[in-house]
Amino acid sequence: MSLLIKNASLPSGKKTDVLVEGGKISKIGSFSSNAEEKLDASGKLLIPGLINTHTHAAMTLFRGIAEDMELAKWLSSVRRAEMLVTPPQIRAGTDLAILEMIRSGTTCFSDMYFHMDEVAASVLESGMRAVLGYSMVDGGNAAGTQQSANEKKMNSELSIAEKFVKDWHGKAEGRITSSIPPHSIYLCSGELLKKSHQLSEKYGVVLHIHLSETRKEVFDCLKANGKRPSHYLDSLRVLSRRTVAAHCVWLTKEEVKLLAGKGVSASLNPVSNMKLAGGGASPMPEMQESGMNISLGTDGSASNNSLSMFETIKFAALLQKNARWDASVASAESVFQAATLGGARALGIPAGEIKEGKLADLVLVDAAAPNMVPSHSIVANIAYAAHAGNVTDVIINGKVVMRERKVLTMDEEKIVERAQKEAERLS
Amino acid sequence: MSLLIKNASLPSGKKTDVLVEGGKISKIGSFSSNAEEKLDASGKLLIPGLINTHTHAAMTLFRGIAEDMELAKWLSSVRRAEMLVTPPQIRAGTDLAILEMIRSGTTCFSDMYFHMDEVAASVLESGMRAVLGYSMVDGGNAAGTQQSANEKKMNSELSIAEKFVKDWHGKAEGRITSSIPPHSIYLCSGELLKKSHQLSEKYGVVLHIHLSETRKEVFDCLKANGKRPSHYLDSLRVLSRRTVAAHCVWLTKEEVKLLAGKGVSASLNPVSNMKLAGGGASPMPEMQESGMNISLGTDGSASNNSLSMFETIKFAALLQKNARWDASVASAESVFQAATLGGARALGIPAGEIKEGKLADLVLVDAAAPNMVPSHSIVANIAYAAHAGNVTDVIINGKVVMRERKVLTMDEEKIVERAQKEAERLS
Repeated sequence: MSLLIKNASLPSGKKTDVLVEGGKISKIGSFSSNAEEKLDASGKLLIPGLINTHTHAAMTLFRGIAEDMELAKWLSSVRRAEMLVTPPQIRAGTDLAILEMIRSGTTCFSDMYFHMDEVAASVLESGMRAVLGYSMVDGGNAAGTQQSANEKKMNSELSIAEKFVKDWHGKAEGRITSSIPPHSIYLCSGELLKKSHQLSEKYGVVLHIHLSETRKEVFDCLKANGKRPSHYLDSLRVLSRRTVAAHCVWLTKEEVKLLAGKGVSASLNPVSNMKLAGGGASPMPEMQESGMNISLGTDGSASNNSLSMFETIKFAALLQKNARWDASVASAESVFQAATLGGARALGIPAGEIKEGKLADLVLVDAAAPNMVPSHSIVANIAYAAHAGNVTDVIINGKVVMRERKVLTMDEEKIVERAQKEAERLS
Repeated sequence: MSLLIKNASLPSGKKTDVLVEGGKISKIGSFSSNAEEKLDASGKLLIPGLINTHTHAAMTLFRGIAEDMELAKWLSSVRRAEMLVTPPQIRAGTDLAILEMIRSGTTCFSDMYFHMDEVAASVLESGMRAVLGYSMVDGGNAAGTQQSANEKKMNSELSIAEKFVKDWHGKAEGRITSSIPPHSIYLCSGELLKKSHQLSEKYGVVLHIHLSETRKEVFDCLKANGKRPSHYLDSLRVLSRRTVAAHCVWLTKEEVKLLAGKGVSASLNPVSNMKLAGGGASPMPEMQESGMNISLGTDGSASNNSLSMFETIKFAALLQKNARWDASVASAESVFQAATLGGARALGIPAGEIKEGKLADLVLVDAAAPNMVPSHSIVANIAYAAHAGNVTDVIINGKVVMRERKVLTMDEEKIVERAQKEAERLS
């Protein structure tokens, strides 16, 4: 399969053609080619596909189920719904999420949840790219006792997570890779965290974990371990270049240095954090100073309620500026990079850039939409003015999955209808 | 002209038909009618048109011109551009803004800027509704000397503003009303502020002013007058039910009580405030407690960079939650109301509600878009999940100005092209 994208505008303002072969960008410049498929990108902006490094896709079914609630009340509402969810519902919710993601220019997402075979099946069929893992919880806690309180539960969780890696890693023409995701320090025993790291090393996959999302998490960890969460994880030797730490809000400068030194990637989730009233803002400038890799995530639809990465990009930048009383922090360039190259680096995927040899995960945006004009700064237009409705075409792994706003790989009407029906059973 | 909207879903979940006659909603329920025009709203959500109570429409031409800058640097960049702007450029920028607003479901905006005849002409032709006024600046300052430093300048400003009211108030089938907008306490003398209030009373129009946008404004006013900005305005007897105070970030509880007692409406502009790193958050819960009318604005495209009120609704709610460490403040209901009924009340326009007798300023949203499903809470979907691209049809003053995403009253291609060309001359 070869695909020629003609007359695209790049964020730099340059015009170019892009040839895609074997799922990769094979040539950039001005040329003609007898590619099997052509895409006229005149009047459109070509950007790397957006990479969402932290979400729970199936939670679209819970969108709107627990609104404007204190965290404890929100958690119990969501947990109640999660207890009832069946595998077909996970599939229905994931299908809906992938539709929303494609429509909003996301070409890869990282998901930790349960019934992950359903999630993988949805990724397989939709043409999406994803890093998936079974989210482990063993009733352990931040006390991190070496001997897990419930060894049987721990072992069963580890085996589900490992089986998922064996079954799915590298599948779907390589579009599916896998991760080992222990949920968090407060829902996992120290032993489970250690073993998770060993599995992540064994298979060479991402270790995906929630980290320092709330003040409570930090206080509980300090009380139980005399250490803040990052130091606690370090004491268990969990941190590595494979670690993607979601949220990273309540970190000290010391922790940022530690995480950066270990090569950990942050996945900032500003919209979810703000909606759940976590307070504060991630120490993004300190992360940048220490050379830490930064990526962005939407989190699940129960706490966001949108999967649009364009929205997350703007929230990420503006929250930083407002929290730091400094308009120059979190520049348009830096948040756009976090949503593209930063995400690719976090997930270990050769994407996030328009460069020969990189994966052809590409998005076209209507450059003549009224909100995208004028072009004083195209990067600022992307970061601060674009919305999901501006996305016209999406290419994943070299394949056109949306053309002129029509999703080609999924039956949109059927998916929306089924999600609505399944959601009604939950409420 | 009569228009029948069939099978619309309301935010309450109810289905309904709506008959529009003479620019107003004349009947709501389930019925048939031989209206001249029909609009099938099956699968669509019907909401009151969004009302943007503080913007400078023509500043779309400056979108992206001054990015990620400290306020002082940003101001000088924008002022430099403003010095060069010609009337035809104001027209080009306003046309672009109105296109963007219609596409994002805004049916009315309040604008204070200059060359306002051009803005009014654009509103007239586009079918938009607006409250317009010439933004006065007399080189006065927060010291508010009774005798203006530059009486000639003040009188000339007042006469331009008054002439605009005389020329345009009530024009365009009543779609254009006018305001008297002294810019702010820091760019206007006390005498100008007083006289502005007298003009606003004389013509029964809105007094539109920037208030307590930055800490500097508050500190300077305290230093010069020994009073905070709201108390200073009160001492000049400027505050009334006609006052719309834009920004209202750095207010004390005392000031909120004062403003509420005087019947002042707030126009919160969270996106612009965050982007310019103003810090903090407006005291929205205190405003609500004291019964103050709250509306929302985008501010201009040089500091936002979007005119989407959907985005502003989400930012308004999430900033409050995060700043107050309380997820229950600024509920979806309350921010949606601020963007509709609150805006109508601020501007003195009988709109913002789907009710018999109200102005037919209405918006249809694709309820089957993947991001708008499921419907556990339709209001939460509007406030937290919707984006500009979900808007399908827009009705202003009973007239369909956008149908199935096609703007009927404006030549979109020509406007986008002209705005691009005019903007290039500025940079």
